[in-house]
Amino acid sequence: MQAEIITIGDEILIGQVVDTNSAFISKTLNKIGVSVYQITSVQDDKDHILKALQEAESNANIIIITGGLGPTKDDITKNTIAEYFNDKLVVDEAVLKNIEQLWENHIKKPLLQVNKDQALMPSKAQALMNIYGSAPGMWLEKNNKVFVSLPGVPFEMKALIDNEVVPRLRSKFNFPFIKHKTLLTYGLGESSLADRIEVWEDNLPSYIKLAYLPNLGKVRLRLSGKHTDRTLLETEMEQQIQQLLPQIEDVFFGYEEDGNIEAIVGKLLAKEEKTIAIAESCTGGKIAESITSVAGASAYFKGGIVSYATETKINILGINKHVIDNYSVVSAEVVEAMATSTLKKFNVDYAIATTGNAGPTKGDSNAEIGTVFIAIATKNNVYSEKFNFGNHRIKVINKAVNKAFEMLQKEILKK
Amino acid sequence: MQAEIITIGDEILIGQVVDTNSAFISKTLNKIGVSVYQITSVQDDKDHILKALQEAESNANIIIITGGLGPTKDDITKNTIAEYFNDKLVVDEAVLKNIEQLWENHIKKPLLQVNKDQALMPSKAQALMNIYGSAPGMWLEKNNKVFVSLPGVPFEMKALIDNEVVPRLRSKFNFPFIKHKTLLTYGLGESSLADRIEVWEDNLPSYIKLAYLPNLGKVRLRLSGKHTDRTLLETEMEQQIQQLLPQIEDVFFGYEEDGNIEAIVGKLLAKEEKTIAIAESCTGGKIAESITSVAGASAYFKGGIVSYATETKINILGINKHVIDNYSVVSAEVVEAMATSTLKKFNVDYAIATTGNAGPTKGDSNAEIGTVFIAIATKNNVYSEKFNFGNHRIKVINKAVNKAFEMLQKEILKK
Repeated sequence: MQAEIITIGDEILIGQVVDTNSAFISKTLNKIGVSVYQITSVQDDKDHILKALQEAESNANIIIITGGLGPTKDDITKNTIAEYFNDKLVVDEAVLKNIEQLWENHIKKPLLQVNKDQALMPSKAQALMNIYGSAPGMWLEKNNKVFVSLPGVPFEMKALIDNEVVPRLRSKFNFPFIKHKTLLTYGLGESSLADRIEVWEDNLPSYIKLAYLPNLGKVRLRLSGKHTDRTLLETEMEQQIQQLLPQIEDVFFGYEEDGNIEAIVGKLLAKEEKTIAIAESCTGGKIAESITSVAGASAYFKGGIVSYATETKINILGINKHVIDNYSVVSAEVVEAMATSTLKKFNVDYAIATTGNAGPTKGDSNAEIGTVFIAIATKNNVYSEKFNFGNHRIKVINKAVNKAFEMLQKEILKK
Repeated sequence: MQAEIITIGDEILIGQVVDTNSAFISKTLNKIGVSVYQITSVQDDKDHILKALQEAESNANIIIITGGLGPTKDDITKNTIAEYFNDKLVVDEAVLKNIEQLWENHIKKPLLQVNKDQALMPSKAQALMNIYGSAPGMWLEKNNKVFVSLPGVPFEMKALIDNEVVPRLRSKFNFPFIKHKTLLTYGLGESSLADRIEVWEDNLPSYIKLAYLPNLGKVRLRLSGKHTDRTLLETEMEQQIQQLLPQIEDVFFGYEEDGNIEAIVGKLLAKEEKTIAIAESCTGGKIAESITSVAGASAYFKGGIVSYATETKINILGINKHVIDNYSVVSAEVVEAMATSTLKKFNVDYAIATTGNAGPTKGDSNAEIGTVFIAIATKNNVYSEKFNFGNHRIKVINKAVNKAFEMLQKEILKK
């Protein structure tokens, strides 16, 4: 069973919008056993869309189209789909009612003709009701193949995929079994990791594939299995992982299925009933933001201080000015003082602190661009490490955040 | 002059990686006058890659391929490209030397055979030297069409596009003129905006197109022009914008070409020589992170307090416990006290504060999920607004951050 995704919109082809919809749809389809053969982004142009529909129909059983369904005039998707199905647009009364209710209950502004026109649909299409917006999804069938058209707004598209598309696909098709399991590692490069686990990799059965996905100091190892026998596949994958784990135990930190590192560390903190606070200089609040992006973070995160300016480190965090003058603001002494002060001020079990120079120019310190010190303080100890994360500002910040979570996780797991 | 982008990698088709490379490449190509006809994401599979190359060659003059060039075994791109060009792989001595130097100066680990093998290239290809990694880019030509293959790591790919691909394309082709200008608006929905500017839009000349790009409470209006006469196009676009601006002055906040709202507000602060600090509860550090993502933020950002826990609001920010008990932690009174306290503690010209409930469960307050209060304090004034941003945690946080910058910008522009 194969699917293709077609995303429609000039905004994608001129690079003003990153297509995040396709990743969400691909992930969701893969989970239910549907492989995605190809993702194609095409222009807001009738002939181009028709050509893409034709090609997709020849490769796949399920064609998911996103984009081009807003209320404004750059939308031609619906007319093109009608043409592809030799159909015409008619008003769908249920959709119109949904739009009217949306305006009455939430939008609370006059209902315009452009909004009412969103109830126009090909007569052969079934409407997929959009609970968050005015553009309905559409479900069409042709020669036992399914065509789904969805609005491009990610939030609306996701709800339609989860609530409408997946249940309908499941009830229409019988899916084979696909399983992915992704092991998260930090601290070892892609090629060193590949070299270390080469023998294991060479002995994987043919129906299990391995891929290396490196990013900012972390490498994800993705195992993908496909088999008609679900039990056999699950057992074999589990055994392969059990063989792999001892070979990577110094760099393995969790499974992607359990969330990103901030979610994994968050679960650890919640389980151990420990609390944390932060003092961020060069990372500028991104560690706090990452921690609080996880639902339930209030159980372990008390907050922290973004001490971006040197005077903030002195006046708010209470770092001794002499320490800064003697060692410079980017130093082990300062970052450890930041962590210790935060631990006390917030009365927490763990404090993380960062100071450094993310560039592009040097700040209140002569430290080389890319230099970052990260400290961890606990009730018994404080220590720091020095890094150089290169000369790309956003990359320096992101690598520092990743490394801070890595150090924190290792500290929590110390017993 | 048209281009196609082919991204290679199963990780994209199973949705584990969002393809951000294509947006960057599209944006860069459009800037130099090259339209992108299509973006196609294909599997790590020889036949599929060959088919995509063939189709791209039939549509475009420039074919950019990313992905599939890492050191590990999931890479088949180079062999497939060699096959497409009836070519074989040979060691490129300059690339090998680059890899050896990279290992000696930066990686400082043993150079493995898998790394050395990255110097293998089709004999007809010119190497594009990768200064940040071991996988070289490749430049091939066929019937006056250009094929470029680049590594998928965004950082490495971007440097190769900017330093190698764009200069070579410019010297090979004569590009037509394309101009984009994107007006940023906040506070008005897509359809209301469309309704308001309908007459203006209907009178746009045929060579200037308008698109509406809505996202999280902001709508971007993108004008795209294409003409052989550069002066005529630039003059006409400027005149159209001057006609449009008075119709949207209450919601217009800048041009995308000047950066996102945090960059635009940052420039304003720097120009006015004003300083800012933050106190964030429900936004958890994301306002600080957004401010500091802009290079040069240290000129105006002193820092702030992430007061996630109620006790942090009391102990660190110094909010009176009675105020919290009387009005609840999610209230106008508390958010205004947070802003005022931050203004004083950090001795700044502007303070932003947020408190709210991003969900999924209620915290130390009975406020409805999605409720957010945002306050702005200045030396003369403090005020707040109450919002409800829905029930999707990350969306609530992002909308609150956007709204905070909107309020801040309006405050700075008050005279």
